[in-house]
Parts: sequence; C-alpha cells; structure tokens
Amino acid sequence: MKEVMAIIRMNMMNKTKQALADAGISSFTATGRVVGRGKGMVDFRILQGAENGHEEAISQLDRGPRLIPKRLLIVVVPDKLVQTVIQTLIAVNQTGQPGDGKIFVLPVLESHRVRTGESGDDVLDD
Amino acid sequence: MKEVMAIIRMNMMNKTKQALADAGISSFTATGRVVGRGKGMVDFRILQGAENGHEEAISQLDRGPRLIPKRLLIVVVPDKLVQTVIQTLIAVNQTGQPGDGKIFVLPVLESHRVRTGESGDDVLDD
Amino acid sequence: MKEVMAIIRMNMMNKTKQALADAGISSFTATGRVVGRGKGMVDFRILQGAENGHEEAISQLDRGPRLIPKRLLIVVVPDKLVQTVIQTLIAVNQTGQPGDGKIFVLPVLESHRVRTGESGDDVLDD
Repeated sequence: MKEVMAIIRMNMMNKTKQALADAGISSFTATGRVVGRGKGMVDFRILQGAENGHEEAISQLDRGPRLIPKRLLIVVVPDKLVQTVIQTLIAVNQTGQPGDGKIFVLPVLESHRVRTGESGDDVLDD
Repeated sequence: MKEVMAIIRMNMMNKTKQALADAGISSFTATGRVVGRGKGMVDFRILQGAENGHEEAISQLDRGPRLIPKRLLIVVVPDKLVQTVIQTLIAVNQTGQPGDGKIFVLPVLESHRVRTGESGDDVLDD
Repeated sequence: MKEVMAIIRMNMMNKTKQALADAGISSFTATGRVVGRGKGMVDFRILQGAENGHEEAISQLDRGPRLIPKRLLIVVVPDKLVQTVIQTLIAVNQTGQPGDGKIFVLPVLESHRVRTGESGDDVLDD
C-alpha cells in the first residue's frame, strides 16, 4: 500500500474530497492549513509593481521566499488504486497556473484499524 | 527505524501521550487538528433523521463526504518498538465505535538530532 | 527522491526558509503548528522550582509529558540534495539547547506536478 501526499490550493479541498469520493476513495486526512513555497510563487501584483519600478514592491521581492497557504492531503490506498488517486487529484486541481500543487507517493508497510485491531489492505476501504 | 502515523480522535490525545510515555516512548509529534473521512463517518442523528424521512437530514446525507476533526500523531521509533507503539495506540484509542482511527507504518531511512548533529536509532529516545 | 521531515522550533521557520532558499532548495511545505515531546522538554523554571521544593512545580512535573509547540517542515528533494538539506537544517536550527528538533528521511517513490501532470525529479525544483 502507499501514501499519496498532495499539497493543493486551500480552496480546492471541497472539490477534491468530492472527486475522491466519486472515484471510490473513501478515506483520507487533510491538514487545516500548511504553507508552501515554490520558485514561481510571487504575487503577480508585486512582480508587476517591481517591474514598474515601485520601491515597495521591489523591497518585497527582496524579502526572500514567500509562503503561500495550502492544504496537505494524505490518502493511503492499496497499490492498485495509487494511479486512480493521482489522476483524480490532477484532474480536479489542475488550473494550469503556478501553485496548483504537488503529489508525492510514499511506501506504507502496515495499516491498522483502531476500532477492530485488523490490519492490511482491507482497513483502507473505510 | 519506522514512522508510525496515527489518525485518532481529537479528545484522545492526552490519554494517548500518557500511554506512550508509560510504554517508554518518549518522543512524538502531533498536529493541532486535521480532518478525516471514512465511509462510516456520518453523524448518528443525521442517519437516524434520514431513516425517519426527515428531508433536511436526507439532504445532508446527499451532501457528500463529511469531514471529521481528528488529530494526526507521528512517532518515529526503532524497528523493535513499532509493535509496542501500535499496540499502545490501539489499546488506548479503541472505543469500538466507527471513527476510532487508523495507524500506518512507513519506513524511515535516517534520523538526526539537530542539537548535536548525531544520527541513528539513538536520536529517537528523547 | 526523499522526503526530509524536520521538527523545528516555532521561531526558527523564517531563518530556515531563507537558509533553504540560499542553499538552492526552492520548494517546501510547513505546518502551522504541531506539538512535540521529548524526554528533556521540561520548562527550566518548573524543573528548578521542583528542585527547590515548590509544591506547584513538583505537581506540574508529575502531570506527565509536556507538549511543546513546534513546526513541522516537509522538503522533498532528489537523492543528491538530501545531505545538503540536512546540513542546512542543522546549521540554522542548532542552538545546542534541548528542543532544537529532529530530522527524518523517508523514501519517496513518485513526484507529480499538478499544473502540468509531469512526474519525476524535475518536478521538485520549483
């Protein structure tokens, strides 16, 4: 089984959870809010202001990397569902603009359901 | 070494941290609040209302997956302590009701203690 | 590629993001606030108060593990940059006092950029 960890836009969580549910992925966890940073993540107005020579905008550009609020989503699924999750996440979160997010896949060695003590792929489906 | 990642009920964190400490697990990290979703996680009153034909409850059922507040706990331990952590987490968090949570185990390749620059299993015990 | 997961002091995030950017690491994610616990994490004043026999301090010592606010940082990088990230994180976060934090390295199997659908090491550099 695998952990699919996605960093997506704040306002995409509702659409994303609905899309995952529609794809039959019934269990996931999302953080309230994280901050992320990528090379291209500079506010357009600041960039434009700096190009136009506005001192305040230039100083903000110099202030180093900007952190953008994001949400982090964790979905643990059996191996056979990993590509479904990835394709679903890309389909619903792709706007084509910088900041759409990243998806990472990590190996998971064991899964346990606390309520029953069961383990294995079966605990992932609710 | 391994990362044990647990998603547990909000109100179980204090008991859980105490149980881990009692089991000799002295280091862990917990998020403030995450939201989780499992197939069975529908509020009992909504379910009952819908079964009784109340329109508002039925419409809420239709509104797609519900997100339940949870806490996410990360415990990194040497391999020999993984089962102790899992059994401790299950013992303290098992109510038998849906929503007790999940536990996942992920491989960890390296651990470093920032204060000393040390690495290896030894950095995990404080 | 690897996930470098670091648990650092709350007030170190700005310096850390700047140090990572200076080291050419341009993409990372940080949680707003987590709580962590290590064996040594007892407030110095409580410890001293308890040693001096103050009852209130002693009772606080007895209250079980204390949770310290921290920030959790996630950096996914190609294998060849893992040691750069670790050394950068240690250099900027090492005060020599207990509570400087921990760094863990986890394997990552796949990376995808949502905006383009690309995958592989190349998606990590922005």
